[in-house]
Amino acid sequence: MYDVLFRSAYITQAVNACVDDHALIQAMLDVEAALATACAQVGLVPQAAAATIGARCRAEFFDPASIGERGAEHASPVVPLVADLRAALPEEIRRYVHLGATSQDILDTATSIVMRDGLRVVLGDLDAVAEALAFLADRHATDVQIGRTLLQHAEPTTFGLVCAGWLTGVDDARQRLARIADERLAAQVGGAVGNRAAYGPHGPAIARHVAELLDLADPVLPWHTDRQRPAELAAAVALAGGALATIGRNVVLLAQTEVAEVSEGSTGGSSAMPHKRNPARAVLVVAGTHQIAPLAASVLSGMDGEGQRAAGSWQAELAPLRRIMALLGGAAANTRDLLTGLRVDTARMRATVESRPADQLESAPADEAMVAAAGTLIARALAAHERVTTALADEPREDG
Amino acid sequence: MYDVLFRSAYITQAVNACVDDHALIQAMLDVEAALATACAQVGLVPQAAAATIGARCRAEFFDPASIGERGAEHASPVVPLVADLRAALPEEIRRYVHLGATSQDILDTATSIVMRDGLRVVLGDLDAVAEALAFLADRHATDVQIGRTLLQHAEPTTFGLVCAGWLTGVDDARQRLARIADERLAAQVGGAVGNRAAYGPHGPAIARHVAELLDLADPVLPWHTDRQRPAELAAAVALAGGALATIGRNVVLLAQTEVAEVSEGSTGGSSAMPHKRNPARAVLVVAGTHQIAPLAASVLSGMDGEGQRAAGSWQAELAPLRRIMALLGGAAANTRDLLTGLRVDTARMRATVESRPADQLESAPADEAMVAAAGTLIARALAAHERVTTALADEPREDG
Amino acid sequence: MYDVLFRSAYITQAVNACVDDHALIQAMLDVEAALATACAQVGLVPQAAAATIGARCRAEFFDPASIGERGAEHASPVVPLVADLRAALPEEIRRYVHLGATSQDILDTATSIVMRDGLRVVLGDLDAVAEALAFLADRHATDVQIGRTLLQHAEPTTFGLVCAGWLTGVDDARQRLARIADERLAAQVGGAVGNRAAYGPHGPAIARHVAELLDLADPVLPWHTDRQRPAELAAAVALAGGALATIGRNVVLLAQTEVAEVSEGSTGGSSAMPHKRNPARAVLVVAGTHQIAPLAASVLSGMDGEGQRAAGSWQAELAPLRRIMALLGGAAANTRDLLTGLRVDTARMRATVESRPADQLESAPADEAMVAAAGTLIARALAAHERVTTALADEPREDG
Amino acid sequence: MYDVLFRSAYITQAVNACVDDHALIQAMLDVEAALATACAQVGLVPQAAAATIGARCRAEFFDPASIGERGAEHASPVVPLVADLRAALPEEIRRYVHLGATSQDILDTATSIVMRDGLRVVLGDLDAVAEALAFLADRHATDVQIGRTLLQHAEPTTFGLVCAGWLTGVDDARQRLARIADERLAAQVGGAVGNRAAYGPHGPAIARHVAELLDLADPVLPWHTDRQRPAELAAAVALAGGALATIGRNVVLLAQTEVAEVSEGSTGGSSAMPHKRNPARAVLVVAGTHQIAPLAASVLSGMDGEGQRAAGSWQAELAPLRRIMALLGGAAANTRDLLTGLRVDTARMRATVESRPADQLESAPADEAMVAAAGTLIARALAAHERVTTALADEPREDG
Repeated sequence: MYDVLFRSAYITQAVNACVDDHALIQAMLDVEAALATACAQVGLVPQAAAATIGARCRAEFFDPASIGERGAEHASPVVPLVADLRAALPEEIRRYVHLGATSQDILDTATSIVMRDGLRVVLGDLDAVAEALAFLADRHATDVQIGRTLLQHAEPTTFGLVCAGWLTGVDDARQRLARIADERLAAQVGGAVGNRAAYGPHGPAIARHVAELLDLADPVLPWHTDRQRPAELAAAVALAGGALATIGRNVVLLAQTEVAEVSEGSTGGSSAMPHKRNPARAVLVVAGTHQIAPLAASVLSGMDGEGQRAAGSWQAELAPLRRIMALLGGAAANTRDLLTGLRVDTARMRATVESRPADQLESAPADEAMVAAAGTLIARALAAHERVTTALADEPREDG
Repeated sequence: MYDVLFRSAYITQAVNACVDDHALIQAMLDVEAALATACAQVGLVPQAAAATIGARCRAEFFDPASIGERGAEHASPVVPLVADLRAALPEEIRRYVHLGATSQDILDTATSIVMRDGLRVVLGDLDAVAEALAFLADRHATDVQIGRTLLQHAEPTTFGLVCAGWLTGVDDARQRLARIADERLAAQVGGAVGNRAAYGPHGPAIARHVAELLDLADPVLPWHTDRQRPAELAAAVALAGGALATIGRNVVLLAQTEVAEVSEGSTGGSSAMPHKRNPARAVLVVAGTHQIAPLAASVLSGMDGEGQRAAGSWQAELAPLRRIMALLGGAAANTRDLLTGLRVDTARMRATVESRPADQLESAPADEAMVAAAGTLIARALAAHERVTTALADEPREDG
Repeated sequence: MYDVLFRSAYITQAVNACVDDHALIQAMLDVEAALATACAQVGLVPQAAAATIGARCRAEFFDPASIGERGAEHASPVVPLVADLRAALPEEIRRYVHLGATSQDILDTATSIVMRDGLRVVLGDLDAVAEALAFLADRHATDVQIGRTLLQHAEPTTFGLVCAGWLTGVDDARQRLARIADERLAAQVGGAVGNRAAYGPHGPAIARHVAELLDLADPVLPWHTDRQRPAELAAAVALAGGALATIGRNVVLLAQTEVAEVSEGSTGGSSAMPHKRNPARAVLVVAGTHQIAPLAASVLSGMDGEGQRAAGSWQAELAPLRRIMALLGGAAANTRDLLTGLRVDTARMRATVESRPADQLESAPADEAMVAAAGTLIARALAAHERVTTALADEPREDG
Repeated sequence: MYDVLFRSAYITQAVNACVDDHALIQAMLDVEAALATACAQVGLVPQAAAATIGARCRAEFFDPASIGERGAEHASPVVPLVADLRAALPEEIRRYVHLGATSQDILDTATSIVMRDGLRVVLGDLDAVAEALAFLADRHATDVQIGRTLLQHAEPTTFGLVCAGWLTGVDDARQRLARIADERLAAQVGGAVGNRAAYGPHGPAIARHVAELLDLADPVLPWHTDRQRPAELAAAVALAGGALATIGRNVVLLAQTEVAEVSEGSTGGSSAMPHKRNPARAVLVVAGTHQIAPLAASVLSGMDGEGQRAAGSWQAELAPLRRIMALLGGAAANTRDLLTGLRVDTARMRATVESRPADQLESAPADEAMVAAAGTLIARALAAHERVTTALADEPREDG
């Protein structure tokens, strides 16, 4: 998705491997293989033919550059992919490849696969982010920090509660993404115009089999004309990006020279000023997540496709989807690294709180009461976090 | 939200009344009243004082223009609203107004109220849209229509299935919006920096009481720094807008002079060409929904607020939120009117299908099998629709 | 555009009066009047008829609510407006109203008028912003301030140069907006499908006359299908918004309690903490400008209209255009007030510079050399500012 | 920018070569070389040292993957690039590398270079698009076609005028892009905090030399804090994308089976329906351009950077800029191919016009007069096109 110059900064190898060309081609082939198997399960394709097709469905047998070049002629890479798959098979088996399917079936289902795989990796990093925040929330539960509103000193709070707030946000994002991975990323089995006409009475069974084989949801209807699934995914990625951006931006602010309440454990130097210690990871989190919402809007603004397959807006979904998944993955990894290495200067935090002007000290609640109130909230956040983590762990995501 | 020149075209009076200035002021006052009551429930405020405060919390006692003008000085209308409320109360009661709260508590909770009320109205119109689509899906279950991909004739389908596809999309949007109205629109009770310090041990109880009194969700933590709630709402509105935009755009396309498979029951003339019959409502649906996704992106891209209250991005949420709710409401009403008056020329649809070139007739599945396959899908969609409608009806939305 | 609760915060009365319903109706009537006059100039309409039409073209004679309601039926307010205008005229004159025109001609040209008028007001406020910045750049030309990169202390600069940078940005925006007001806001005279067929050989002359009468540009072709004019305007408004947002955000940052290098002259209190002094105007600038880019994107993403008049995307342009002009106007006024009342603590700035660690002092250039270098740049900026101001003043904008 | 699977569909090799990693690294090295030369011109660097540095500034000597990996630590690839460049040079020369510069100087100026180079390629393809449209406008000047408003038949026009409208739009885009390439893509020479302190009195001369050596504009001030230059570029790319999207979408609509007034000369088949002829290039144009406006919005919404270098939004500019340049280049090439191979069925166009209902024939102007009026406009468009082409050819872009 990115050339190498910025890949290390904004994405991770693990998530890139889920959404790159190789992964997408393999996913398309997985769909073709699953379709052949599903058709065999209902008797439309000989079992042996399905097995032969499946054995050939390995990305390394195909040339991405050639498929890409010929795919441009069709505004779809599926046409040449199917042609190459058929060409590599015995004559009598070729007609069982791509049976009753259309390009959009393959590409939509493959997109669900790569997004689901990408989400699993991202969720792993978000788990680590949440753990780091839970640790910080607990560790700093009684460490006072001045609260800032409109970036002005307001009343004291605790750094533990600040972290608990970030934790609750990340947990919210984790639940939403996990739900989408489980319920919303669906197989698409519709055929040329979405009515599964070629499968006769076997349509529902084939669709169900395909979904089961690929560990995807089986939707009520083919969703070729209803783009809420990819758009909801895009929105959920943007929401998660917002949760991470909040952490990144606030670390930048707390790391300001004048504030210096936190710093990154390992930061890079500057090309001009060797003495500087920049909040490099936090900046990468802000920079990476900044790009997500507009890309999500690109998907959200292209849902009104024409007829039974859109003439442009559908084709425009895939690139932003792959991109935002990569960006979210990179931001999650950077946030994890940022938090696990974060240096917190609690003495400085306390000194700032204690140096408040007298008139502020009077008007504010006693700090002990505040710490107790904040502690109650932290406990709620940590308990909720436990529930989220347990619920997500119980889900058969990995082996589903 | 709109001046009158375009109000009739793009929003409805019913939804406008939920989100306009009067409604927002009343909602802020409802929050102040609920807070006083909640504080009385835990003993921080005398019951009589809470009752006196509540009796004064009526929008008609306040001057929006004056509040607006003074509010600009504070970047918040809550400061003058609270001042005016206090000024209208006996001296000894004033200190019980806005107890332990901050501007953001009031405005965030009030936003939840007006959005929830707006959603209820919109959901009513979306119910009608879904019913109209269910009727059309059933009525035209066996009416063949040519499927179009990339706007080229592909294979036949049925108009009933096309409508079933739109129905499934709208049902999806209804469920998502209803879930958000019930679970995500939450009370905000955080105090100056989100730790509820002023309430001592009573924080959780007060927050719960406020939420119950206002029929809003009681969140794990104050969400002043976690903007996923408003952003998720914005995204859900955009997703619903996409479901409606799909209907609007496709009615425009099917109403083209050359296609003429559907037409609007009552359409307006043109200022230049009296003979024209324009798909006016469908155009309004497209035009109204086109504006939603960018406004949702405005909220999605401002989640990374600074410290314990953002210095700009938080303040920028409310206008787009009110706007998109109004736009969605108008689009839902226009879609409802469009569908209930839709004229469907099934003879013309059939003629187009039957005039296919011979080579296409050969390669396509028999139309009877197609109608049966499509019918299976329509039945699935209608059954799912029933489940959605039942589930939504069971929810105590109206009486909280 | 806004209801009253936030109008004072985000827009000004002066710019609102340029783009509100009354202004838009008057602008549409001005177009009808100009068209009648132009047709009279080429002999297609009797001079007396044109005069009678013109005399009737006053917004106060029309009922916006009624026009709005009936306009919804046509997805255009022009149809009822023309009907009402004709109905108010003698029978024999009615056919000379709206001669050869189409709704889009009237609405596009009226949009050019209200945007041009709005721009003139906004440019006036931007002139004041630029003057305030030029004053600050000059006044603080030798006042050292620490430069901050990634919000870390870097090397010293001068506050004068910081202001000069903001000035150059605002001057850039002023030039762009003035150019658009003069060259890009054009009359639209195309007729039903954009070929001016109804005017026979008089088309070019009528179009030129209309443009001259309304002080708008006369384009090469009708631009009904080429939406770069409104989209470029939207982009220019967003660019200007960015220039102001930079000022607003940096004032917020420099006003942080820990930094405290600047403060707003008059700021509002907080509802929870009376002691706080919030950078209210700067926050309003950030919050107002934050909403502009997404609304501009709404226009930029709807340029690909269908045929000779778009079925939705064209209709979706006007609301965001009016909105962003109002938002830019409000941001310009707020920035002007912010800057003219800005308190600058040069002693604190200097103290921060002088308290740099020894290793930084060594590696940095001598401050005197820096001040001289910065002074050279300030002088360039001020000279360029003079040129811009002179050039803009020379333009016959007001009396066009 | 894209992996290979979709590269052929959405971008061209020529534009990709301008903006890919290799090009960006070479551009950064070109900036370092130019800086050394400029410093030598004012005597700050020995001529021989500058020559030695320049000779080493070749991208093939550097390892993009290694630079990328180490760059992530600094949120900037410039730090390791400079380190590697220095390491490859004799000890005594190293201090002359990157003299007085900061990372942002190098990356901003390099971005100007790659964008300028990309624009030149894109402008070449847009020239060809414009020529193709001029040819079509002239050839079909008298070929009548029904005009369509809201996709309903309105009054007749000519296909030549439709093409002239597209031509005027593309010419507008060409002028804007060319102006930006010449005037707005600027060198950035600011040093650590933008005051050129390290260069003493030589700052202006060095900046001018760097700009001249790299054929870029020399701005009034360093623009590190004023992001209107990249944002205006992004907006101009989006505007040009809109001009192309209009062509793509309308070809799709005119190629509809029911309309069939145009078709693509060579189109691909479908994986499900071999008989179909899809408007594949037009779909690619729509799909590619759809992604541009949101990416441009990403840049437009990140202009309000913090202090003397932004902590995230600046870093977020480059990826969308590279992407939209590639997308625009691909759309321009696809549009060129689409238009040069376009098949126009003028007989069918005429038959549609002549089959209008009698009442429409009466109310419409005579077709001969319409053709004459349209011809006048076509002539204007072609004359303006000549002027644009001459003006662009006169500019010393290539050898600047």
